[in-house]
Amino acid sequence: MASQNSQAIAVAKAAKAAFEASQLIPSSERVKALHEIRRELESAKDEILVANRKDLEAAQVEVDAGRMSGTLLKRLDLTKADKWESMLQGVTDVAALPDPTGIVSYASELDEELELYRVSCPIGVLLVIFEARPEVVVNIAALAIKSGNAAILKGGKESSATAQLLSKAIQSALSKTAIPSTYIQAIQTRAEVSALLGLDQYIDLVIPRGSNSLVRNIQNNTRIPVMGHADGLCSVYLDETANLRKALRVVLDSKTDYPAACNAAETLIVHESLLNSIWPAVAKALLASDVQLLCDAPSLAALQAISPALPKLSTHVHPSTPSSYETEHLSLTLSVITQPSLTAAITFINAHSSHHTDCIVTETSESASTFCRGVDSAGTFVNASTRFADGFRYGFGTEVGISTGRIHARGPVGLDGLVTYKYMLRSRADEGHIVGEFGIGEGKKEYKHNKIDVSSVSF
Amino acid sequence: MASQNSQAIAVAKAAKAAFEASQLIPSSERVKALHEIRRELESAKDEILVANRKDLEAAQVEVDAGRMSGTLLKRLDLTKADKWESMLQGVTDVAALPDPTGIVSYASELDEELELYRVSCPIGVLLVIFEARPEVVVNIAALAIKSGNAAILKGGKESSATAQLLSKAIQSALSKTAIPSTYIQAIQTRAEVSALLGLDQYIDLVIPRGSNSLVRNIQNNTRIPVMGHADGLCSVYLDETANLRKALRVVLDSKTDYPAACNAAETLIVHESLLNSIWPAVAKALLASDVQLLCDAPSLAALQAISPALPKLSTHVHPSTPSSYETEHLSLTLSVITQPSLTAAITFINAHSSHHTDCIVTETSESASTFCRGVDSAGTFVNASTRFADGFRYGFGTEVGISTGRIHARGPVGLDGLVTYKYMLRSRADEGHIVGEFGIGEGKKEYKHNKIDVSSVSF
Repeated sequence: MASQNSQAIAVAKAAKAAFEASQLIPSSERVKALHEIRRELESAKDEILVANRKDLEAAQVEVDAGRMSGTLLKRLDLTKADKWESMLQGVTDVAALPDPTGIVSYASELDEELELYRVSCPIGVLLVIFEARPEVVVNIAALAIKSGNAAILKGGKESSATAQLLSKAIQSALSKTAIPSTYIQAIQTRAEVSALLGLDQYIDLVIPRGSNSLVRNIQNNTRIPVMGHADGLCSVYLDETANLRKALRVVLDSKTDYPAACNAAETLIVHESLLNSIWPAVAKALLASDVQLLCDAPSLAALQAISPALPKLSTHVHPSTPSSYETEHLSLTLSVITQPSLTAAITFINAHSSHHTDCIVTETSESASTFCRGVDSAGTFVNASTRFADGFRYGFGTEVGISTGRIHARGPVGLDGLVTYKYMLRSRADEGHIVGEFGIGEGKKEYKHNKIDVSSVSF
Repeated sequence: MASQNSQAIAVAKAAKAAFEASQLIPSSERVKALHEIRRELESAKDEILVANRKDLEAAQVEVDAGRMSGTLLKRLDLTKADKWESMLQGVTDVAALPDPTGIVSYASELDEELELYRVSCPIGVLLVIFEARPEVVVNIAALAIKSGNAAILKGGKESSATAQLLSKAIQSALSKTAIPSTYIQAIQTRAEVSALLGLDQYIDLVIPRGSNSLVRNIQNNTRIPVMGHADGLCSVYLDETANLRKALRVVLDSKTDYPAACNAAETLIVHESLLNSIWPAVAKALLASDVQLLCDAPSLAALQAISPALPKLSTHVHPSTPSSYETEHLSLTLSVITQPSLTAAITFINAHSSHHTDCIVTETSESASTFCRGVDSAGTFVNASTRFADGFRYGFGTEVGISTGRIHARGPVGLDGLVTYKYMLRSRADEGHIVGEFGIGEGKKEYKHNKIDVSSVSF
């Protein structure tokens, strides 16, 4: 452990030093680095795929022994479909995005020749912890470099051979630029992660991408701010005034478009007035799509009342339990609950959802407005599928992840979630500027606070 | 402890419920609440000042016994100078500030009749922990209410009698509005704070205002995000090209304008080429203002070389130690260090400053630019006193505090540090909107991502 500690300190110090050194390098060099990374990955392709084969073979042994799921194994495979190409294209795409640094969000003339600018800048050193998929190494490295942050990456041990070669290619590419090659570092063990979580003097933000328990475990063990990407427990609420066609489309898409995604709906909330009208029709469509329904007593009774019309009732419809409404199914299963009013639905969502994305299907703007104000989630949608909650669909060009926290960044996070800001105050007066000249009384100056119209500064 | 826990849970639950209920109330009601609070405080003035006298008498006993400092006692006194009046005026001023919620920071047309808005909204429940000054109860309550957040407040035990009556007045004012009176609650004990720090399902942000050790202790004991207000270890760097007049004015103001403030300079960094020119003149002026200097060997030798001109050399100039550069003096003491270059000065600042505010005195824009890029602090100033780092001076109208973190809010924090945002997605299409209609292939739609020009939405 002592050696893990000293190794972690060396990694963290090198990351901070690389970050600080990079601040004096123009951002064009970071774009150049991304193009170098793409080239380096292309030329190391064979070697990387050999390592990937090795990871896959080791994983197959685990799957055969029943210690790993087949789904996890599939995620490791870099040769699957267009994964390799889209990984490379991702680097080029990130390189082409607008620079998130140097953007002015507040500018004020405090006095003649004294100007204040609040300018976006990188956060510093990121510690990113993620699961199996090895291409995440390249995605995250690209995002960190583009936004000017140094990063320490810890992937799943299942993909360690692949990840090691991907990191090697990245470091080799960086060594062809002015950016220190320690700007992006990979670590292999949990012990190193534990040691790094104690180093808040070097590491500025931890980004865990994985389960709720991973995020909570990290939050429990560090002073460093955590931008968590955890569960998505999304719901669709069918309001009293819901339109059947919209209800059918939005519920089906939210549940079945991609059930394993965090923005898929896990819970359907039905206004009690719809139990014998819209609800049976929606249930029929869900059953036709092979969805399993976990229903509360009223919604179950409503379906039982029309049982001859529902051949799948016995195989696909079951009573819910309280835990149904706290489960992220990530499969073709949907929990269903009846509520007597919009307000009750909002209270239910705030108590049970993971504050990710929740949707109302309604025909009245009053209900829409009440829902959007009252539901305390990163996304509050009206007549639109929860599946729209995504950085690409939102137009960010890329996605760092979907934050389930509400501090700093909330919901789908684009590159601007990886920057903070600093205040630059510049006096151009012959004598500089001092606070003692301002205040109340004879000869004292007053602050002007005139807005300066500027969207970016180069410095 | 068990009863503290259940009491804390009750407080936290009530706060969350109050927050959620308040989301359905128009923001004008929050402004009304602030005016009610002012009226209630005015009518309870006598009673509050009696309690304040009680706190002061108890504190005097502690001071006499040597268990409390006289400075702390003075901070308790609500009758001192115009403290009472300015507390009331503060409430009115906050009421008059622009609403920080409902502001659109991103709006995009994703498709015909499908519009996405990123809208500022309150964070939720704040837990604010602060020191002795009782009027902070009223300041924080006003800021929380204006920004739409519920708050749980814990002040110093020295002012508990006063704080209790101030809270009572606030709750009584709230009961005259539609806002639940549990929107602002005060707690008294550290045990309650400890219990609350475990309740991340109810509390969304902890704001400790106090010492570094308070902030670190809280960060060590909670999963809840922390917006810390800790030490200010600010520095002024005299660049090779520094102008004497600017150096004199900026250094003197940074050190002596208000030495107990977190934005006062604690360290002076002198380029070695100035050791026998500008440095002795600056030292002379500092000594004339009764400043104690803790000098490294070269800066000390430079002063010793002109000792006849410095009558205070023996009483006011001392050798520094490594810890001098890690000390927030908060008094008329200044640590001085010589550096051979701008780059060395930047490295020194990044290693020793608290990343609060640092200033360069220089005549070249190249040095200014390098300094502002390279120094990793919330404020990087050019030829302007570090004392400008302040929410009022920056033009925010108020100040929640000065954040020494770099996530969410950095540097002086105005009301916008107390809001987050949510994404509202609204379909106005006859059939609603589903993700399955978008993508690549025949009949699939493409995302438009047209910018919508709007600065605020009401919903």
